[in-house]
Amino acid sequence: MSILVVGSIALDHVETPFGSVKDALGGSTIYFGAAASYFAPVRVVGVVGDDFPHHQLEFLKKRRVDFQGLETKPGKTFRWGGRYDFDLNSRTTLFTDLNVFENFKPTIPDAYRDSEFVFLGNIAPDLQMDVLKQIHSPKLVALDTMNYWIEGSLSDLRKTLKKIHVLLLNDSEARQLAQEPNLVKASRVIRKMGPEVLVIKKGEHGALMFIGDTVFWAPAFPLETIFDPTGAGDTFAGGFMGYLAKIGDVTGEAYKRALIFGSALASFCVESFSVGRLKNLTPEEIRDRFKAFWLMTNFDYLNSGF
Amino acid sequence: MSILVVGSIALDHVETPFGSVKDALGGSTIYFGAAASYFAPVRVVGVVGDDFPHHQLEFLKKRRVDFQGLETKPGKTFRWGGRYDFDLNSRTTLFTDLNVFENFKPTIPDAYRDSEFVFLGNIAPDLQMDVLKQIHSPKLVALDTMNYWIEGSLSDLRKTLKKIHVLLLNDSEARQLAQEPNLVKASRVIRKMGPEVLVIKKGEHGALMFIGDTVFWAPAFPLETIFDPTGAGDTFAGGFMGYLAKIGDVTGEAYKRALIFGSALASFCVESFSVGRLKNLTPEEIRDRFKAFWLMTNFDYLNSGF
Repeated sequence: MSILVVGSIALDHVETPFGSVKDALGGSTIYFGAAASYFAPVRVVGVVGDDFPHHQLEFLKKRRVDFQGLETKPGKTFRWGGRYDFDLNSRTTLFTDLNVFENFKPTIPDAYRDSEFVFLGNIAPDLQMDVLKQIHSPKLVALDTMNYWIEGSLSDLRKTLKKIHVLLLNDSEARQLAQEPNLVKASRVIRKMGPEVLVIKKGEHGALMFIGDTVFWAPAFPLETIFDPTGAGDTFAGGFMGYLAKIGDVTGEAYKRALIFGSALASFCVESFSVGRLKNLTPEEIRDRFKAFWLMTNFDYLNSGF
Repeated sequence: MSILVVGSIALDHVETPFGSVKDALGGSTIYFGAAASYFAPVRVVGVVGDDFPHHQLEFLKKRRVDFQGLETKPGKTFRWGGRYDFDLNSRTTLFTDLNVFENFKPTIPDAYRDSEFVFLGNIAPDLQMDVLKQIHSPKLVALDTMNYWIEGSLSDLRKTLKKIHVLLLNDSEARQLAQEPNLVKASRVIRKMGPEVLVIKKGEHGALMFIGDTVFWAPAFPLETIFDPTGAGDTFAGGFMGYLAKIGDVTGEAYKRALIFGSALASFCVESFSVGRLKNLTPEEIRDRFKAFWLMTNFDYLNSGF
């Protein structure tokens, strides 16, 4: 089943202790699409300026990513610049030039309106709602947001949260949205706002998923070298949604595996700058890493001897 | 098989946002013993002052904790005071009155010298080495230490590390000991110093175990209320060593389950002040939590459909 993703396309400037890149392909739809397209066809809605290097999208087009919904507007493409410190946990935003993205009003092409799986990337909550109104009958809607909207557009955000199934947040955003430092309590507050499933991403500490009356926990893959954390969250969402769309199953067990595939794809993402590592993954590499997560967490509880 | 534990016995003063306790039973041997004794007999070597309320040890004695190695010296018992902030992640030490613990020289009673499982609690590395010299032929020696010894007694610590099997550290201590921020790289540096198995505790983010050429990851149990984190590390070690001693198995698979039992016991520890929650646990409660860890991490990797 195809997945619709709506969000940013950017040219990123990233500095890390290991080097830097300029005008590198980035943005939520790109990272999401690069990951999800290993599992299912992806439909992108976004906007770029007339300076955008469209040839950089070729590898995605070959992988069933459809850019019919990509508008090109006069002006410059959205540019973001950031610098990571030595431990890669803290990031400094160097600049955010929204350019043509500033007035982005997502229009969903007719051919996309039957999408059953929808990922609403991090844009204004009222625009996320506008997107949903254009979709006939989505089966699973996931949403990403950030502190900026939690602080400045909470009322819109709460309206949109009522219409979605899965919310993906990082831990500080979850605490902020719920106004509650304890994540278990925060999860209850947030799920009352609408989403049945809450995924809390904790970076190098893995991810927690609250679903039904249970919690599921995915580790982060322990890497020796993290080159560039940019896009890991959207890549995570891409692996997560991509897997669910591929198997067309939204049971609790499928969600658990989806969380692991999301973590697996995110672990590849950070191994190089931009989408470098997501260009040429093989299904075997993805399956091997999925299995590595299993080996890292699996234990025999039935024969413990206690 | 019995486990020998050498370390502190303290009377703790703890302040948290949920209340405070004064002169509460604490210290590494107490938390360790309270956890390990659910699995195997424990032998304690430590020192208290003549003010120590020995009746508080009754619950441990009933659970096969042997205090033949507990010396009572003229003077006051070791007292420690600490305050936790609202998020319980940062701790302020209010006071450390070593008292009789200052001149602690562990003497291992003859009856203890055949111990096959040994836990060297957080004391000076040269004293940890003295203990080892008094043990005939230990099968598994685990050691805890802290930043104080890494900074001030590194040479002694490195000598002792050569003689042990398992090192338990928190993540900042691991980074400090290895002088390497990346935990995967740090694990390699540290294991070259001696310990075959390295357990890195990350508090609310779980624990990582480096063993053979693999990594195993235990989550932390997501709790709604953490009353008092004091002693969680020693309780973790107690569950870990206790389980290994009970089944007398030190294979990789046993270590994985031991890491989960350690995490399970630690999750009980923080549910009340001092050893409150560790006094009356039933084996069923421990098994249920062990299973809860399995449910929280288990997924079907063989039938993923990808």
